[in-house]
Amino acid sequence: MAKSPETEHPVKAFGLAARDTSGVLSPLKFSRRATAEKDVRFKVLYCGICHSDLHMVKNEWGMTQYPVVPGHEIVGVVTEVGSKVEKFKVGDKVGVGCLVGSCRSCDSCADDLENYCSKQILTYSAPYIDGTITYGGYSDTMVADEHFVVRWPENLPLDSGAPLLCAGITTYSPLRHFGLDKPGMHVGVVGLGGLGHVAVKMAKAFGTKVTVISTSISKKEEAIEKLGADSFLVSRDQEQMQAAMGTMDGIIDTVSATHPIIPLIGLLKAQGKLILVGAPEKPLELPSFSLIMGRKLVAGSAIGGLKETQEMLDFAAKHNITADVELISADYVNTAMERLLKADVRYRFVIDVAKTLKSA
Amino acid sequence: MAKSPETEHPVKAFGLAARDTSGVLSPLKFSRRATAEKDVRFKVLYCGICHSDLHMVKNEWGMTQYPVVPGHEIVGVVTEVGSKVEKFKVGDKVGVGCLVGSCRSCDSCADDLENYCSKQILTYSAPYIDGTITYGGYSDTMVADEHFVVRWPENLPLDSGAPLLCAGITTYSPLRHFGLDKPGMHVGVVGLGGLGHVAVKMAKAFGTKVTVISTSISKKEEAIEKLGADSFLVSRDQEQMQAAMGTMDGIIDTVSATHPIIPLIGLLKAQGKLILVGAPEKPLELPSFSLIMGRKLVAGSAIGGLKETQEMLDFAAKHNITADVELISADYVNTAMERLLKADVRYRFVIDVAKTLKSA
Repeated sequence: MAKSPETEHPVKAFGLAARDTSGVLSPLKFSRRATAEKDVRFKVLYCGICHSDLHMVKNEWGMTQYPVVPGHEIVGVVTEVGSKVEKFKVGDKVGVGCLVGSCRSCDSCADDLENYCSKQILTYSAPYIDGTITYGGYSDTMVADEHFVVRWPENLPLDSGAPLLCAGITTYSPLRHFGLDKPGMHVGVVGLGGLGHVAVKMAKAFGTKVTVISTSISKKEEAIEKLGADSFLVSRDQEQMQAAMGTMDGIIDTVSATHPIIPLIGLLKAQGKLILVGAPEKPLELPSFSLIMGRKLVAGSAIGGLKETQEMLDFAAKHNITADVELISADYVNTAMERLLKADVRYRFVIDVAKTLKSA
Repeated sequence: MAKSPETEHPVKAFGLAARDTSGVLSPLKFSRRATAEKDVRFKVLYCGICHSDLHMVKNEWGMTQYPVVPGHEIVGVVTEVGSKVEKFKVGDKVGVGCLVGSCRSCDSCADDLENYCSKQILTYSAPYIDGTITYGGYSDTMVADEHFVVRWPENLPLDSGAPLLCAGITTYSPLRHFGLDKPGMHVGVVGLGGLGHVAVKMAKAFGTKVTVISTSISKKEEAIEKLGADSFLVSRDQEQMQAAMGTMDGIIDTVSATHPIIPLIGLLKAQGKLILVGAPEKPLELPSFSLIMGRKLVAGSAIGGLKETQEMLDFAAKHNITADVELISADYVNTAMERLLKADVRYRFVIDVAKTLKSA
């Protein structure tokens, strides 16, 4: 018989967990493994709340293992390292994002693309190599193989930087990989939420001209004044859309609700690239003729590899990029989840774990 | 009032034209422009029948100008050159493909991608820069600016080589551009028609492993024995498809009927590429999640630029690649069109223009 979360490992841990599809989070005593040779153990300081946490606690993707301790935007300070750890020492500030494992031997892993390894291990609610289930960052401590731990840059804020571990790399990686990182290029960003607002900052830091594309004009001022976008396009305004046809080198589409991509493909120049990072459940309508006539492409992109995540953090530190966050206490997390469901946050909740997560 | 096709230009010409949406072709006396400074005039020897000719003669794309003389896989021998022509002389064997003009100044044109110029001029049924309508290769003579004329390689057959000007470049270009031209890669080809059978030969010449994907097993022997494919996958066979999941670096999809691409995306490895070269009228269903989880992409590709078309012909000559053709006489063209509609040809009709097109 499988042991309980509290007793399966030797090290006591404490966190917030959902126990069923209600998704309501409540305190959970669980345990974490002893520090292995290559493991880094750290005290969690901050953890961002990603929209996927909301799907996971309610098992909306059908893969949740209860009890689930969510959180994959985790920042902390190292408290112990295994005997063969080379990159970190006690006291270092570190981060863990969406992954804590991968096969380390496939083509993707060999190319530093652990995020496309078919045996990747998610940071929470996934079977780890020892057969136990992983627990995320809504908890007091964390332990992970050093390969999946990133070094926190000196001048990058710990709280508002935390969401970069998911929202940051998810937008940085496609901008880089698909060559949308050249000064003077014109990049569109669809949707101005947790991912979108970071995408704007990343694209601006690369020196591109950024246009935010949104269904409503309500975020225009903020997009331009606060986030630094160059222009704003209301996707429901036919005239505006028509005028912008064929002007963009690429578009980062962060929307995870079903939505029309045909007009977005129209916004692209010949050889333009539409990159999906939000994942609508239902298939989207793809106009093959528009793709063919301009050698345009539609691609997907998911987070990034560990090497690229480190590169992204260093880039963010250099360009003073953080997420816009609302720092909350651990006991506010259920309210935060409700507000997140209504998109009532600008733009990311971050839990002040170290100061507010208290063992019952 | 616009002049008639027969009198608008000084040089008499003769061809086969459709006069209305019946698409029936019959003899037409028309005219071609005098040889301008940069023009190459040539006697048409052979002209391939492309599936798009069938759409165009019936105005199924809503852009046909009647009378329409189709044909954009044109091979001939130069009879006259303009005073400033540098690349060709009388007696040279030459070819003209889908384009006879472009703006020559936009980014696409500057990048030798006239095929993505928004002002490209199609070889037939399109307004030329002088305001007259272009006529294609189902005719005794042809005239075109030398920029849009390619040199015919010495050892490339004139008849079976003709379809390369459309089917060849349409498949060669995406294999090259999307990096599916590396020995050892695994490339899928969907649909074994005019485009598909050339795609197989091109991909084999690049040294890749080629799998033909088809709805029916009927073409398996031919695909493997005759065209040189390495394997054959029946797309309706769930078991076969399942076994091939995640094995392909790229797929060239030549099917122009609406069809499911979700299973094709499943066949791709992480970072695999599905390239559409056939253009179904209705939007296809795009599974964003599958794209995202493997950084896969779906792109379109249309013919190729002139520089690349020349490169393709030279490559074909070097590797002995031609289309498999059924050479027909001009008076068989309406029957050929009917057979083409039923996909009753392996794999391309080519009209023996010089020997069989007789002025009424």
